[in-house]
Amino acid sequence: MYSLDDMIELRRKIHRNPEPGWCEFMTTAEIVGRLRQMGFNPLLGEKVINKDFIAGRNEKAVQASLERARAQGVSETILDEMNGYTGCAVIVETGRPGPVVAIRFDIDCVEVTESSSEDHKPVREGFVSQHPGCMHSCGHDGHLTMGVALCSWLQDNKDKLIGTIKVLFQPAEEGVRGARPMTESGILDDVDFFFGNHLGLGLETGIISSNPGLFLATTKLDATFIGKACHAGANPEQGKNALLAAATAAIAIHTIPRPVGPVSALNVGKLIAGEGRNVLAPNGFLQLEVRGETEKVNTFLREQAYERLEAAAAMYGCQVKIEKAGEATEFKPDPEAIALVDAAAIEVVGPENVMPLDLKLGSEDCTIMLKRVQQHGGLGTFIVFGSKIAAGHHQALFDFDENVLKIATDFYAHLLTRLNGRK
Amino acid sequence: MYSLDDMIELRRKIHRNPEPGWCEFMTTAEIVGRLRQMGFNPLLGEKVINKDFIAGRNEKAVQASLERARAQGVSETILDEMNGYTGCAVIVETGRPGPVVAIRFDIDCVEVTESSSEDHKPVREGFVSQHPGCMHSCGHDGHLTMGVALCSWLQDNKDKLIGTIKVLFQPAEEGVRGARPMTESGILDDVDFFFGNHLGLGLETGIISSNPGLFLATTKLDATFIGKACHAGANPEQGKNALLAAATAAIAIHTIPRPVGPVSALNVGKLIAGEGRNVLAPNGFLQLEVRGETEKVNTFLREQAYERLEAAAAMYGCQVKIEKAGEATEFKPDPEAIALVDAAAIEVVGPENVMPLDLKLGSEDCTIMLKRVQQHGGLGTFIVFGSKIAAGHHQALFDFDENVLKIATDFYAHLLTRLNGRK
Amino acid sequence: MYSLDDMIELRRKIHRNPEPGWCEFMTTAEIVGRLRQMGFNPLLGEKVINKDFIAGRNEKAVQASLERARAQGVSETILDEMNGYTGCAVIVETGRPGPVVAIRFDIDCVEVTESSSEDHKPVREGFVSQHPGCMHSCGHDGHLTMGVALCSWLQDNKDKLIGTIKVLFQPAEEGVRGARPMTESGILDDVDFFFGNHLGLGLETGIISSNPGLFLATTKLDATFIGKACHAGANPEQGKNALLAAATAAIAIHTIPRPVGPVSALNVGKLIAGEGRNVLAPNGFLQLEVRGETEKVNTFLREQAYERLEAAAAMYGCQVKIEKAGEATEFKPDPEAIALVDAAAIEVVGPENVMPLDLKLGSEDCTIMLKRVQQHGGLGTFIVFGSKIAAGHHQALFDFDENVLKIATDFYAHLLTRLNGRK
Amino acid sequence: MYSLDDMIELRRKIHRNPEPGWCEFMTTAEIVGRLRQMGFNPLLGEKVINKDFIAGRNEKAVQASLERARAQGVSETILDEMNGYTGCAVIVETGRPGPVVAIRFDIDCVEVTESSSEDHKPVREGFVSQHPGCMHSCGHDGHLTMGVALCSWLQDNKDKLIGTIKVLFQPAEEGVRGARPMTESGILDDVDFFFGNHLGLGLETGIISSNPGLFLATTKLDATFIGKACHAGANPEQGKNALLAAATAAIAIHTIPRPVGPVSALNVGKLIAGEGRNVLAPNGFLQLEVRGETEKVNTFLREQAYERLEAAAAMYGCQVKIEKAGEATEFKPDPEAIALVDAAAIEVVGPENVMPLDLKLGSEDCTIMLKRVQQHGGLGTFIVFGSKIAAGHHQALFDFDENVLKIATDFYAHLLTRLNGRK
Repeated sequence: MYSLDDMIELRRKIHRNPEPGWCEFMTTAEIVGRLRQMGFNPLLGEKVINKDFIAGRNEKAVQASLERARAQGVSETILDEMNGYTGCAVIVETGRPGPVVAIRFDIDCVEVTESSSEDHKPVREGFVSQHPGCMHSCGHDGHLTMGVALCSWLQDNKDKLIGTIKVLFQPAEEGVRGARPMTESGILDDVDFFFGNHLGLGLETGIISSNPGLFLATTKLDATFIGKACHAGANPEQGKNALLAAATAAIAIHTIPRPVGPVSALNVGKLIAGEGRNVLAPNGFLQLEVRGETEKVNTFLREQAYERLEAAAAMYGCQVKIEKAGEATEFKPDPEAIALVDAAAIEVVGPENVMPLDLKLGSEDCTIMLKRVQQHGGLGTFIVFGSKIAAGHHQALFDFDENVLKIATDFYAHLLTRLNGRK
Repeated sequence: MYSLDDMIELRRKIHRNPEPGWCEFMTTAEIVGRLRQMGFNPLLGEKVINKDFIAGRNEKAVQASLERARAQGVSETILDEMNGYTGCAVIVETGRPGPVVAIRFDIDCVEVTESSSEDHKPVREGFVSQHPGCMHSCGHDGHLTMGVALCSWLQDNKDKLIGTIKVLFQPAEEGVRGARPMTESGILDDVDFFFGNHLGLGLETGIISSNPGLFLATTKLDATFIGKACHAGANPEQGKNALLAAATAAIAIHTIPRPVGPVSALNVGKLIAGEGRNVLAPNGFLQLEVRGETEKVNTFLREQAYERLEAAAAMYGCQVKIEKAGEATEFKPDPEAIALVDAAAIEVVGPENVMPLDLKLGSEDCTIMLKRVQQHGGLGTFIVFGSKIAAGHHQALFDFDENVLKIATDFYAHLLTRLNGRK
Repeated sequence: MYSLDDMIELRRKIHRNPEPGWCEFMTTAEIVGRLRQMGFNPLLGEKVINKDFIAGRNEKAVQASLERARAQGVSETILDEMNGYTGCAVIVETGRPGPVVAIRFDIDCVEVTESSSEDHKPVREGFVSQHPGCMHSCGHDGHLTMGVALCSWLQDNKDKLIGTIKVLFQPAEEGVRGARPMTESGILDDVDFFFGNHLGLGLETGIISSNPGLFLATTKLDATFIGKACHAGANPEQGKNALLAAATAAIAIHTIPRPVGPVSALNVGKLIAGEGRNVLAPNGFLQLEVRGETEKVNTFLREQAYERLEAAAAMYGCQVKIEKAGEATEFKPDPEAIALVDAAAIEVVGPENVMPLDLKLGSEDCTIMLKRVQQHGGLGTFIVFGSKIAAGHHQALFDFDENVLKIATDFYAHLLTRLNGRK
Repeated sequence: MYSLDDMIELRRKIHRNPEPGWCEFMTTAEIVGRLRQMGFNPLLGEKVINKDFIAGRNEKAVQASLERARAQGVSETILDEMNGYTGCAVIVETGRPGPVVAIRFDIDCVEVTESSSEDHKPVREGFVSQHPGCMHSCGHDGHLTMGVALCSWLQDNKDKLIGTIKVLFQPAEEGVRGARPMTESGILDDVDFFFGNHLGLGLETGIISSNPGLFLATTKLDATFIGKACHAGANPEQGKNALLAAATAAIAIHTIPRPVGPVSALNVGKLIAGEGRNVLAPNGFLQLEVRGETEKVNTFLREQAYERLEAAAAMYGCQVKIEKAGEATEFKPDPEAIALVDAAAIEVVGPENVMPLDLKLGSEDCTIMLKRVQQHGGLGTFIVFGSKIAAGHHQALFDFDENVLKIATDFYAHLLTRLNGRK
C-alpha cells in the first residue's frame, strides 16, 4: 500500500503537470500506468465516457493537450486506448456476493496561473505548475492521489473483501462537465453505495464531514446567435441583427421570475457580438448559468432561459444554437450513508473530528452520479476531508496539507471494510 | 339637380348627426332615402361590403349607434337591408357601350367633440353636432353631399351618357378601414376609371388639384397579449407576464431597421397592460402603425412588426392576437387620369386654379381602390377640391366653405361628360 | 361593557357601509359618536394623522365619500373636526404611574363588490354592503368593533387600571398606507407596549396566536413619466417617448438582482401609456411594488427601482414623478411581548388554543408602528384571533364567525389587566 | 517634375509598405525625404496635428509601427521630428500677393490582408503588401503620390506662381479620424480655396468629377461601461451590471427616432461585455456610429446616442466613458469652386470626360477641412479622378490604373495655373 511519501510523490508529479477538463491525457496515462503496475485492468475512453453527453469540451484545447502529452512522451498506445476521452475507472470484482460500492475522484485542474512567489510551497519545494495558465488550485491532484492510493490498498486487501468496488477517476469536474457523460456510460447502474469527496473547503486537517450541506443544481449554457451581416448604413433592412437578439435575450433572462423559497441564481456573464462599427452584427454569443437549491427550480429557470433565448432569436430573424456547457443536480444525501461515513470516520479521526458542514451556493457534478445511484435505490453522500489550505480554492497561492492524503485513504479503507469486509 | 342650397341643407343635416366609422346607420339611411327618391336602386350591406375584410370595427359602438338610429326613427326595413354594414353604392348603367367609371365619397365622422363656441359657424347657424364625442371635422359630410348631388345630376343627364357610372359611399375612411372591404365586394373589378377626392387640405376655395402628391401606404395593428395572472409576491413563477411581453414588443418594434430612401414611419402609440400592483400582469395591449412611401417598405415594416410581436409573446410564454385595424397602400396616380381631371377642372375653375399639390406623410384608403383598378389596367387619381377651412382638419373648430360643394359637383359633371358623354 | 349582541350590531352596521382607505368618514363618525357616548374625548383629524406622510390617497374618492357621508346625515361638525382626515384615537390616562400601552385597530374596507348570493350570510341576514365596489371582505369591520368594545370595557374598568391605554383606530391599512402618517403624528412616541391584530387568516375560532410569522417590508410606488407628444409620422424627432421610457423601466425593474437568502419580491403590475396610434406617447404610468423579508432587502430593491425609473426617463428625455403609494416594514416581535400575549390568551382560550403561526409573504403596516415603539425601547407583537371564515380574505363571499369579537375583547381585557392592572 | 514612371515607382514602394491610420511613420518619412530633396521644408508632427483632437488612435498599434519603422531603417532624427504624430505639409509661399490654396492628400492604408493570387497585379509585378493585415486597398498610395508629384511641379514652377500653395498629407482618413486634428492645427485658417480628392470610385480612367454628390456627416463613438464585478450566485446585489447596461444602451440606441427627409443611419456594430459565466459583468464596450445627410440630423442622432448611453449606465449604477473615434461633416461644395475644377479638367481630359457624380451614403473627413475653409469665406469642392479598378475599394484584390496619377497631377498643374498663375 502507498505510504504518505508515495502519495506525496504522485501528487506533486501531477501538480507539476496540471491539465484542464477533457485534456487530462498525461494525468490519465499516469493513473492508468500505476493501476496496471498494481495488476488492475482499468477501463478507458468510451468505456467510461458516453461521448453523446459531453459538454463544455474545447476541441482546440484538447488537441493542444494531446500534442503536449505526446511531446512529453506519453505513448501512442495508451492515447489510442483513450481515443480522445480522458478519465478511467477500476472495477474490483471480488467474486463474492456483496454490495457494489463506487467512489469518485476528480482529476482536472483549474485555468489559473500558479503563483511564482517564493512564499508558495510548490515553488520552494519544486513542484510548481509547468503549464502557464493551468494549476491544480482546487486540490484534484490530491483527490486522484487518494484514488490511486486506495487502489493500492484494494490490491493488498481484496481477498478480505466481498462484492464489487469501483474507483472512478472523473475528468472535467470544473465547470460541472464530466459527471454526466461518465454516469451515462452506465458504470453506476448497479451501484449500491456511492461516495464522492473534496478536500479542504475551510476545514482543518483531521476533520471529516459526511454531509457538506447544500449543493445547488445548475445548468451552464452557451448560446450562439446567427444573424446576417449587411452594410448598416446602406441597406440595414437586409441584415438580421444578432447583436440586438443577444442583448434582448440577456435582459430578458434577467427578468425570469424567481420562485419564493429555494435559493436560486441566474447570470448572463458574457456577451460578445458583432464585427465592425458599420456592419449590422451577424453574430452574438452569450455565456450564462442558472442555479437552484432544487432540481425543480433549476429546471424552471433553465426552461425559461431557453424560451427567452429562442424568442429573442426569432424576434430578430436569427437562429440560436444553445449548448449545455455543464450541469449538476441537487444534493440529497442518504441518512444511512451519512451514518456509515460517520462511523468509519470516527474510527480514523475520533468523534470530536466528525461534523456536518453548512456549505452553500456551490455546485458539484458528483450530485449527478449520486442521483443516478439513488434512482435505482442506492445510497450515498459526499465527504469532505479537512486540510489546512494556504489560500482559497481556485487562487494562485492555493496549496493544501498533504497529510489529508493518508487520512482520506485510511478512511476509505475503514469504510470499505465496513461495507465490503468479509464477515 | 341639387342646387347649392339643397346641398347645404343635406350637408348640415348630416353635420348635425355625425357617425363614426362602421356606425353610419342614419347617414346611410339618409343617402339611400334620397337616392331612392331619385329613382335609383342603391346597393346596401354585404352587396358593397365584404365582411371578411372588415378591420377596426368596435362592436359596442356599432350596437350603440344602431340603437341611436332606431331611437331617431330610422326604419327597421332599411336597417335590415344594411344587416349591420353601413355604406352604399349607386350603379348607373346606361345600356350603351362605354367606360365604367367609379367615384368614391366617404361618409364617416371623426371622434372629436365639436366646439360649442359662438365663434363657430355650426353653432351660430344651428347645425352643430348633436352627438358629443363625434364631429364631421374632416369634411366627409361635404364629400357625401357631393356624391348625392352628383347622383341627382346623373338622374337628370343619364340619357346623354354612355357606359356605366358607379357612385360609392364608403364607410370608415378614418383609420383607413372601409376601402378594403368595399373593394373586396368586387364592385371595382370592371372599373376603367376611378376617382376619389377630399376637400380642404389647405387649398383655397376654387382650386382643384389632380395630383395631391404622396400618400403613404400604412398598416394599423392592434396587438393583444394574453398571459396568465398570479400573485406576484407569492408565486411569480406561475404566471405569464403579458406586461413584459408588451413592453418588450414596443421597444423591439422601435428598433426595426429603416430602409434608406423611401419615407417610412412606425409608432407604438399606446400600451395598456396589467390589473393590479401585485398581480403578475395577465394582459397587454398595443396600438401601433407602420407607414411607407412604397407598399414594399410598408410591407417590410409590417412583417417585421409581426415577427417582433410574436416573438415577444413567445419570450414570456404568452399568446398574441394581432388584428389589422386599418390599411392603405401607396399612391401612384396615372398621368392620363391626371390629364383628364386637369382638362375638366380647367373648364370649371380656369387654368390658373388647377395645380398639383405636394402633400406628404398622410394616408388615404382610397389608394386601395385605385390600386385594385390599376391592377386590371384601369386608371385613376385622387382629386383635392380647395375650400377655405376655419381650423385644421380633425379639430373642434373645423368648418369648410360650402361653395366647394357646387364646384365639385360641377367638376364631376364635366369630367363625366368627357368620359361618358354621348359623342 | 358591550355584549356580543352589541358588537354584532355595530359590526353589521359598519359592514353595510364599507368605506375604503382615506374615505372612512361615516365609519369614523360612528366610532367617535359611540366613544363620546362612553364619555371619552377621542382625538380626530390632524391630531392623529400627520398629513405630510399620507400616501396613496385618491382625492376624488375622498370627495365622493365625503359627499356620501353628508348625504347620509353625518354632521358637518364632526366632518369639520376630521378636516378631511379619517381615523381617531382614545387615550385613557389613569393618572396613576404605569406603562403606556397602545392597541391598533384598522377600519377601512376593500375595493371588492360583495356577493349577492343567497348563500352569503350578509345577504340572508340583511347586512350586505350598500356600496357597490366596496366591501369589508378583510374583516376590519370586526377589528374596529373589537376596539369600540374594548373602550367600553376600559370605561367600566378604568379605576382598576394604572398607566395609560391608547386605542387607535387607523384608516387605510389596505395598501399599507395609514400606519405611517398615524405614527408620524407622534402618538406612539411614549408607548411601552404595542399590539396590533387581525382576525381569521385561516385559524379556527377560539385560537389565538401571539406570533404570526413573517410580514414582509414593502414599498408601493406609482411612477408617472412625462414626455412630449408629436406626430409620430411627420416629425418623430420632436417628441419625447414616455411609452418607451415606461416600457424600458418596467423591464429594467424586473432585472434588479435579488439578494440570496431573505425572501424578496418585486412586480410592475400596471403600465398605461400613450394617447393614440400615431401620436408619439407623451405619458406613461407604472404601478409597482417591492417586498423584502428584511427592511434592508426592501430598501435595496426600492432604491434600485428608483434608479431604474429615473434612468429610463432620462434615456428618453422624459421627466418621472415617483410617489410612494404605501409602505410597511419588517416584523420583529419581542419575546417578552409574545410571552405576555400567550399568558393572557391561555386565560381566555386555554393553552391548547394558543400557538404560533407561520404566515408568509404578506405585509402589514402595523409593522411601522411596532418598529417606532421598538426604536425607543418599547415592546410589542401582532396578534391573530382565529375566526372561521366563509371564503378567503378579499373575496366576494368572505364572512367571519362573529364569536371572535367577544374572544378578542375578553383577551384584551385580560392583557390589559396584566399590564395595567392595579396591583 | 515627376514622370509617370517616377510616380509609379513611388506608389509601388508605398504599396509594399502600407501603414494604417496614425501609424504612417515610414510613409511620412518617405514623403518628407523626397520633399526635402526638392528643397522644401515640410511641416511635421504637432505643427500639422493638434493632438487634443486626435480620435481613434490605438497606442499599441502606433508603438508597433514605430518599432517596425525603426527596424526598417527610418532615422531617429525624423521620428523625433514627428514626435509620434504622422502626416506632414508643404507650404509654398511665392512672396507675391495671391490666393491661398490648399490641396489635401491622404496617406493611410486599410486593415485588409492583400490577396496573394497570381491574378493580382501587385503580386505579379512584385509590389504586394509586405505587411499582413494591412493593404493600400483604397488607393491612398496613389493619392500621396499625386501630392508628391504635384510638389515636384511646384518646385519647377514656383516662379510663375503667386499667392500661397499648401499641400497637405493627412494621416488616418480611414475611420474619418485625421482631418479634425489637422484642421485644428490652424493650417487651413487662411485658405481661400480648398480641394480634396479620391481616385477610382467606379469612374473610368480619364474621367474627372468636380462634384461627387452626397457625403454623410458621421460620428463614430466608442462607449466603455464600467460596472463592478461580484459573484453572481452568492451576492448579485453587490455588483453593477455593465453587461445589462451595454445591452440596454444598444437596444435603446436603435429606437432613436429618425427625422423624415434627410438620409440617416445608425448602428451599434459591436458589443463586448463580461468576464465569466458566474461573474456579474463589470465591463461593457460598444462600438457605434451615426450618420446623417445633414450635420443637423447627424448631431441629433449623436446627442440622442449620448443621452441613451449615459442613461443606460445610470440605470445599472455604472459609469460610461464615451470617446469620439472619428467624424466627418456634411458636404456642400461651392459652385464657384466646381466651375473652376470643371474648367481645368476640361483642359486636361476634354469636356466629354467631366461630369458630376451621384455618390451616396459614404463619408469623407475632408468635409471637415472644407467646412472650416467655408466658415471664413473660402471655397472648395472634392474631386474624383476616374481610374479603372480591379476590385471594389477595401477589397483584397483592389488595384487601380496608375495612369490616373499623371492625369491628376496634370489637372492640379492646370488648376493652380488658373488660381495662382502670374498674369
